[in-house]
Amino acid sequence: MAKLGFIGLGIMGDPMARNLLKAGHDVALWSKTKGKAEAVAAEGKGKGCDTPAEVAANSDCVFYCVGDSAMSRETAIGKDGLIEGAKPGTVIADCSTVSPAESREIGEALAAKGIHFLDAPCTGSKPGAEGGTLTFMIGGDEKVFESVKPYFEAMGKLFYYCGGPGMGLQAKLTQNLILANIMEAFNEGMVLAAKAGIAPELMLDILNNSAAKSGLVAFKAPYILDRNFVTNFSTKWMHKDVSMALDSARAQGVPMPLTAVTQQMFQAAIAKGYGDMDFCSTVRVYEEMAGVEVKKKA
Amino acid sequence: MAKLGFIGLGIMGDPMARNLLKAGHDVALWSKTKGKAEAVAAEGKGKGCDTPAEVAANSDCVFYCVGDSAMSRETAIGKDGLIEGAKPGTVIADCSTVSPAESREIGEALAAKGIHFLDAPCTGSKPGAEGGTLTFMIGGDEKVFESVKPYFEAMGKLFYYCGGPGMGLQAKLTQNLILANIMEAFNEGMVLAAKAGIAPELMLDILNNSAAKSGLVAFKAPYILDRNFVTNFSTKWMHKDVSMALDSARAQGVPMPLTAVTQQMFQAAIAKGYGDMDFCSTVRVYEEMAGVEVKKKA
Amino acid sequence: MAKLGFIGLGIMGDPMARNLLKAGHDVALWSKTKGKAEAVAAEGKGKGCDTPAEVAANSDCVFYCVGDSAMSRETAIGKDGLIEGAKPGTVIADCSTVSPAESREIGEALAAKGIHFLDAPCTGSKPGAEGGTLTFMIGGDEKVFESVKPYFEAMGKLFYYCGGPGMGLQAKLTQNLILANIMEAFNEGMVLAAKAGIAPELMLDILNNSAAKSGLVAFKAPYILDRNFVTNFSTKWMHKDVSMALDSARAQGVPMPLTAVTQQMFQAAIAKGYGDMDFCSTVRVYEEMAGVEVKKKA
Amino acid sequence: MAKLGFIGLGIMGDPMARNLLKAGHDVALWSKTKGKAEAVAAEGKGKGCDTPAEVAANSDCVFYCVGDSAMSRETAIGKDGLIEGAKPGTVIADCSTVSPAESREIGEALAAKGIHFLDAPCTGSKPGAEGGTLTFMIGGDEKVFESVKPYFEAMGKLFYYCGGPGMGLQAKLTQNLILANIMEAFNEGMVLAAKAGIAPELMLDILNNSAAKSGLVAFKAPYILDRNFVTNFSTKWMHKDVSMALDSARAQGVPMPLTAVTQQMFQAAIAKGYGDMDFCSTVRVYEEMAGVEVKKKA
Repeated sequence: MAKLGFIGLGIMGDPMARNLLKAGHDVALWSKTKGKAEAVAAEGKGKGCDTPAEVAANSDCVFYCVGDSAMSRETAIGKDGLIEGAKPGTVIADCSTVSPAESREIGEALAAKGIHFLDAPCTGSKPGAEGGTLTFMIGGDEKVFESVKPYFEAMGKLFYYCGGPGMGLQAKLTQNLILANIMEAFNEGMVLAAKAGIAPELMLDILNNSAAKSGLVAFKAPYILDRNFVTNFSTKWMHKDVSMALDSARAQGVPMPLTAVTQQMFQAAIAKGYGDMDFCSTVRVYEEMAGVEVKKKA
Repeated sequence: MAKLGFIGLGIMGDPMARNLLKAGHDVALWSKTKGKAEAVAAEGKGKGCDTPAEVAANSDCVFYCVGDSAMSRETAIGKDGLIEGAKPGTVIADCSTVSPAESREIGEALAAKGIHFLDAPCTGSKPGAEGGTLTFMIGGDEKVFESVKPYFEAMGKLFYYCGGPGMGLQAKLTQNLILANIMEAFNEGMVLAAKAGIAPELMLDILNNSAAKSGLVAFKAPYILDRNFVTNFSTKWMHKDVSMALDSARAQGVPMPLTAVTQQMFQAAIAKGYGDMDFCSTVRVYEEMAGVEVKKKA
Repeated sequence: MAKLGFIGLGIMGDPMARNLLKAGHDVALWSKTKGKAEAVAAEGKGKGCDTPAEVAANSDCVFYCVGDSAMSRETAIGKDGLIEGAKPGTVIADCSTVSPAESREIGEALAAKGIHFLDAPCTGSKPGAEGGTLTFMIGGDEKVFESVKPYFEAMGKLFYYCGGPGMGLQAKLTQNLILANIMEAFNEGMVLAAKAGIAPELMLDILNNSAAKSGLVAFKAPYILDRNFVTNFSTKWMHKDVSMALDSARAQGVPMPLTAVTQQMFQAAIAKGYGDMDFCSTVRVYEEMAGVEVKKKA
Repeated sequence: MAKLGFIGLGIMGDPMARNLLKAGHDVALWSKTKGKAEAVAAEGKGKGCDTPAEVAANSDCVFYCVGDSAMSRETAIGKDGLIEGAKPGTVIADCSTVSPAESREIGEALAAKGIHFLDAPCTGSKPGAEGGTLTFMIGGDEKVFESVKPYFEAMGKLFYYCGGPGMGLQAKLTQNLILANIMEAFNEGMVLAAKAGIAPELMLDILNNSAAKSGLVAFKAPYILDRNFVTNFSTKWMHKDVSMALDSARAQGVPMPLTAVTQQMFQAAIAKGYGDMDFCSTVRVYEEMAGVEVKKKA
């Protein structure tokens, strides 16, 4: 069994780390929240550490899953960061969804010390993390990825090697911008239909039996119709991802007017206080303008 | 067997009429193109007529499928139109996708003569029309619909009764505006990914194994990757439907900024000469701006 | 002095008709509101009539100013409309802002009876109408326009002959779509500045001393800063004009994504209840989303 | 006379520095381009330096005008930057248009060394810089600004103190986002009018005699009609400013859908190769879609 590390024990990271432990690995752990690492460590051959650097010093391969680009940078190359403890040859895989450009910079800083870096954002939400059925999109050196793939397999099922540094993130951002736009398309359509007097259940049934059917809508629509906006993935985080996709498009000269409008509508949702709710709550921006609700008939 | 009529023998109407004949019905036929009615009539107990009025005079129930609101009006209540030949109690079902507001006006004009009218737009494309597996969305009187449903069953498999006059069309426009937006979301995402250097096949594979998977993309993406823009549903017709959805939203006070941008991007596609190609050709607007193609690696 | 007619005695039409009377002309008058024509008639050599047809029967040249395309059609070629009373050779000038396509149809219907038709939309708002300083944009036959220009001169100061039928309206819609977009640009910028903590008076002062200065903002901004949304030109009417501009762009294959978004934001304003207020009240849509007001410091 | 410094001798900085020399000040100079500082220095009591640090060491107040946020940071607090040569109490004024958030960070780094910092973006273009008639928008400590205002007066005429750190930039970004949107509004309107067949000179004349008149259009339209896209302010720089305005709006929770679309249209213009031309060249994006040119009749 391998000597691994895991940093960031939030909604996604907690079950991911537990799956590494369940697979029998030694796992050095650290999380910003005091006590979290020790609690998870107790599930197997885990060990709580005081800093990311200490995690790196105890590991041949470290995974981490944090909130944004700044936290990723801090974890990897900040004070007490992984870079301070990792031996040359260590593999570090960032499972967070961050900016491809910033990820490349982090990778370059690590490479200067002989440390390998992979961008490895994942999808599958909380259930996928718990069940070990996540999908990973990988950027970086393919041989490096192959060398640590067995550890990934404790956490996920589908693995897409997408190319050099940042390419896993490019794929992830592409996926999320499409999801965000599908959400808004659904919002606009359903609010129009509801306003016209079509029962939301009926309209949904029609969509789900048509080419407009999507995995996203099949998953989110029941929550909307039940007026249950419990967070699987928050408006705020989706807005962040869409914004990074737009930044990437800006840098590469790709106009994305639809996505730009979706970003602004999500901004409106955040302004209205729906930032921490699930991003399907964005439907309320339209509902409030149109004076109608997309909800199940009593 | 019933005495039916069918008007409009285009890509959709031709196989729909043949399915009515195959089911053994007497079918009076008319089409703008000379000789078309007689050719179809020969497939069963059909009869070519000289005018829509003559079709109506020979039928208890008439279906029609034409291109736009003006043609629908002409067919139903224009000179030599159905209204001039139909007896009180006749059922007329418009299977075209037209404006709900105009459809209601047509229905009122017919109702004044005691003629029943249903809006009954359908989806399923050419294969669905040929296989008799279309989905119909119905607006109008529910009992009237039930009385002619057996004839519809020769042409389709799924039937959604959506409410009073125009409600079938409202549902259809909602479906199509969602499809149009999904198409554009896919276009923006795939062009960004291609520009970043991700192979389109790979990106598509990722999408098809994620919540971003949709029936539309599963159907259209292979055509795009093969650079095959043969028309299943043209940009021009999708633009027309999106425009009608926006008109309906305008009338009902529902803002739809995303759909408005999609409409304009389709307008750009038409301006570039892609109006008569399949609406997946809209990807070329983005490709030409970004200087990259979403195509299979050789 | 000439025998003229004027129909539609609203905010604009009332002072326009009075200016014709002041110039000494005989003016036959009609308005939908009972008694209005007689009241205006008393200001000079006026005469209230029972129908538009009667106005036409008493006039060599008729002006009219109504709310929308449907009312324009009704006035000109509907039952008891101008067409029923006008002699061949009569000149009819529609000063309303209506659809160029519909205006052309009206002109054709009148031409078939030998009646001349001009589209002659105007700008200048209520003060311009009262002061006889309106600007007119003219479409139709130039010689016809020249023949009645002296009567126009009682109502306006600037006259632009724009070309054949509908071209005056094309110019007017272009002007209004630019005004609508400038309004929204101002709204977005001022709300951002206010949110950042810049005093609106200061920001306005900066704008008014820069290339961003516009006639529209100079006129509207003081109202906004005073929170006075009294209607000079309503959101509803501006939304109508923007929608007609978009329809015209659609017909001519010109993509206008900015204008499309402005239309949707105006739609949001109408949905929020600002349809009958001045169109500068659209700023409130942004203010409510951002949680800040663009108002004078107490 | 004072001991001043000036860094960045581009289109704007060159004449600004010369105006400081003309006013009789000692001016320490540095520019990335070798030899530029010495050439300007020769115009008065100037002195070419080897680094920004050396400029600071010779000055009580340093102005600088560079291209973007990264260059501003480098100049002020990078290696050999102003921070390394400036004594406590020195005033540094950044006349560049950069991100308010980054500007605040720079100011904080300088404040830690007792160095005063002002954000002082300006408008007026090349002619304003040459004539000493620029408009400055100032953020930072008001007393600090008052203490150096006399030096500013050699370069500009209008001075707006906007508030604390970054507020000058907030005002500037607001102004530029409004300008960018006015440009696009004009583009959409003029292309529609041209497509409809209205002569651009006529349409422009109408606009310039209406509330749609703006300083921007009065300045830019003649260039467009002459098909002269010589750069006064490039599409690329305007796109940068609009993007910073959107970033600021994102951070503050202000939705700006119109501006978001304008940003994407500018991105399309850059993708088409118009990035280094004047930003009025963005009209060509619309012209190419619509197949018409906004140009003077021969």
